[in-house]
Amino acid sequence: MTFREDGAAALDWAASYLERVGDYPVLAQVEPGEIRSRLPASPPETGEAFADVLRDLDAILLPGITHWQSPRFFAYFSVSASEPGILAELLAATLNSVAFLWRTSPASTELESLTLDWTAQLLGLPQGWHGHIEDTASTSTLAALAAARETTGRNVVVCSEHAHSSVDKAARLLGLDLRKIAGDAEFRLRPDELDLADAAAVVATVGTTSTASVDPVPAIADACAAAGAWLHVDAAYAGSAWVCPELRWSQRGVERADSLVVNAHKWLFTPMDCSLLWSSRPDDLRRAFSLVPEYLRTSDEADSLSDYGPALGRRFRSLKLWAVLRCYGREGLQARIREAVRLAELFEGWVRDEPGWEVCAARHFSLVCFRREGSDADNEALVERVNRSGELFLSHTRLDGRYVLRLAVGNERTTEDDVRRAWEALQKV
Amino acid sequence: MTFREDGAAALDWAASYLERVGDYPVLAQVEPGEIRSRLPASPPETGEAFADVLRDLDAILLPGITHWQSPRFFAYFSVSASEPGILAELLAATLNSVAFLWRTSPASTELESLTLDWTAQLLGLPQGWHGHIEDTASTSTLAALAAARETTGRNVVVCSEHAHSSVDKAARLLGLDLRKIAGDAEFRLRPDELDLADAAAVVATVGTTSTASVDPVPAIADACAAAGAWLHVDAAYAGSAWVCPELRWSQRGVERADSLVVNAHKWLFTPMDCSLLWSSRPDDLRRAFSLVPEYLRTSDEADSLSDYGPALGRRFRSLKLWAVLRCYGREGLQARIREAVRLAELFEGWVRDEPGWEVCAARHFSLVCFRREGSDADNEALVERVNRSGELFLSHTRLDGRYVLRLAVGNERTTEDDVRRAWEALQKV
Repeated sequence: MTFREDGAAALDWAASYLERVGDYPVLAQVEPGEIRSRLPASPPETGEAFADVLRDLDAILLPGITHWQSPRFFAYFSVSASEPGILAELLAATLNSVAFLWRTSPASTELESLTLDWTAQLLGLPQGWHGHIEDTASTSTLAALAAARETTGRNVVVCSEHAHSSVDKAARLLGLDLRKIAGDAEFRLRPDELDLADAAAVVATVGTTSTASVDPVPAIADACAAAGAWLHVDAAYAGSAWVCPELRWSQRGVERADSLVVNAHKWLFTPMDCSLLWSSRPDDLRRAFSLVPEYLRTSDEADSLSDYGPALGRRFRSLKLWAVLRCYGREGLQARIREAVRLAELFEGWVRDEPGWEVCAARHFSLVCFRREGSDADNEALVERVNRSGELFLSHTRLDGRYVLRLAVGNERTTEDDVRRAWEALQKV
Repeated sequence: MTFREDGAAALDWAASYLERVGDYPVLAQVEPGEIRSRLPASPPETGEAFADVLRDLDAILLPGITHWQSPRFFAYFSVSASEPGILAELLAATLNSVAFLWRTSPASTELESLTLDWTAQLLGLPQGWHGHIEDTASTSTLAALAAARETTGRNVVVCSEHAHSSVDKAARLLGLDLRKIAGDAEFRLRPDELDLADAAAVVATVGTTSTASVDPVPAIADACAAAGAWLHVDAAYAGSAWVCPELRWSQRGVERADSLVVNAHKWLFTPMDCSLLWSSRPDDLRRAFSLVPEYLRTSDEADSLSDYGPALGRRFRSLKLWAVLRCYGREGLQARIREAVRLAELFEGWVRDEPGWEVCAARHFSLVCFRREGSDADNEALVERVNRSGELFLSHTRLDGRYVLRLAVGNERTTEDDVRRAWEALQKV
């Protein structure tokens, strides 16, 4: 078979998958080890046909796939790999650029800078920030905190108890002491609790993982400015919402950040992985990372984006972001974000109006935190049962010591009917 | 347009590109800023057709692409995105799995473990090592050194002056002191220079970036064992060669490593990015990284691979590795590795036999280090001229203070004719 024929079969598989994805049980209905036990323990001696790979993807792997593309995936933060993004990944893999120096991929390097500038315009960020792409927010936050350590010479990082675990991971890697501050009644960092005398950085979150709460960035920025601490804003999920002017209330103060992460692979319809990191202090970021051994020295006077983060080799990730921004345009992005928020609002209303159910946190953006009357164990059992049903996939968190369910709308295929089905399934079990 | 129609156009673009890739100038013939200046400064308000993206990829981006898939790409380490690997990336983007917990993608998690076991068998590595995939060797080495620091409680890492710059980057991030030892006459770490009393880890390299020299791993392993230091082996490039038994001389001692990195995206025909990290001490690796916040807690008794490295979100990278291993089989991989080594050997012979040219380091695997009689400036000008010609793309290094050219064979499309054309172009300029 040729690439064209195998490719047509792969494309047909992909198209059929996307057409049927709403029909599959959302959470994979398998036990640990089950998928692996159905595959040969050793690789083949001689080559097989690509058709065999496709056949086994269908027959063996598919039951072990949790369908992130399902319109009833409501766990964590739900995401979408849009069609332009998927096809751009095919193109990026074909080109196989490794963009560690400008000259090893001028188009990738320059398109990366351009698409980050485009996105900054769409989100209403300050002009002139330096942007580049990392794999995940874990890496973006790691890079930002490395720059903060390098720049301030200090060893403490401060965040709220509701900040993402990636802050813990980055602090541990960098050998920074992490100081967590208790949140207020609405799960926000309390700026009056900030004591930044020895702080290298504060991580403020716009859209926390548990409740999508929004830290008071303006007051945090004041405290950082007074103490000479780096302000890193984690808007991995909620930052995409800024494409809609009516959601920019959550952006106040962000213009004063030293660095900002927004994950395009979360709510900007771009396939994993595509984490956008901007900095208003790119020289400090570069100082933390730049290393030029002889075998990478060139006479080019151009920026190399590997100088701004931990990895040297870099994929052509901007191609998919470019494809999404072009094929959706500002209006297309706004329409999708607004629809997700509308559906979450609708669900929130149903929960609020139903006796025996409770909304547990102010709804921000497209995430609803709620629970049923009863014990934590009852609610935990409820989540496990609906997830096992395959009808939808939810996750949970713990707020003020109580077990709480989370429903996050974000997949672009999710319709009102999907949210209604989810609500009915929850009431039934 | 539908996904099927846009997809057919994208696939046609990809197939045509791969058919013509040898015809393009290998190194992009553009000036810094040129590509960006041809693109709009702002994103569109309304969505455009995917066909417009493809058109601009051709018309605007293509001249700015350095063709890593070209058969005459001989710079750095040349790589191949094979056809099964490319198509598997299309499938992975379609599924858009985010494998941070087992349950969020059982198939991805289990296939990742399986393909790492398969690869370990192909390369002749010890049974029972724990394997997972990181984006790049920079991250794999960072993870290994984090585990070494955590396990030993020490703060010094030791490597040869010829180790990769990723060791410097990881040490800087982790706050480790890096001690570099001068190499011997064949660019290998000198084990008699090792003083490991306070060392957390030694990074031994099998296939250094400058010359593909091979550190004496057995003696280094002895020293590490005596001092209680972690042994990390960086075989990012050369490790793939172990699929051929005749090249396993370079694997001696590696069975005693605490961790090992091999980049499948370098010489195992897998598209960027796919860095394989094995450890014989997975519990230590997990201890350095595992963090389970409430919103990620599950009752599943299964390994989550995000517990073994810096990133939380993880793409379904094993799908492309699986596709390559299946479609090529052991024999297919061996044939391609052997052909690359044969072509490098041939080129080495031509250089050796030609008056006025010199081979500058023992040839290992598929990399030839050489230079022309004359000054460093002459050789540098030579490289710049052939690269500017577009006929081939070479890079350089500095050995014993002298500027040296590097020709690395590794793309699976490279034929004897391509290597001959490269040699003729070098002689002509």
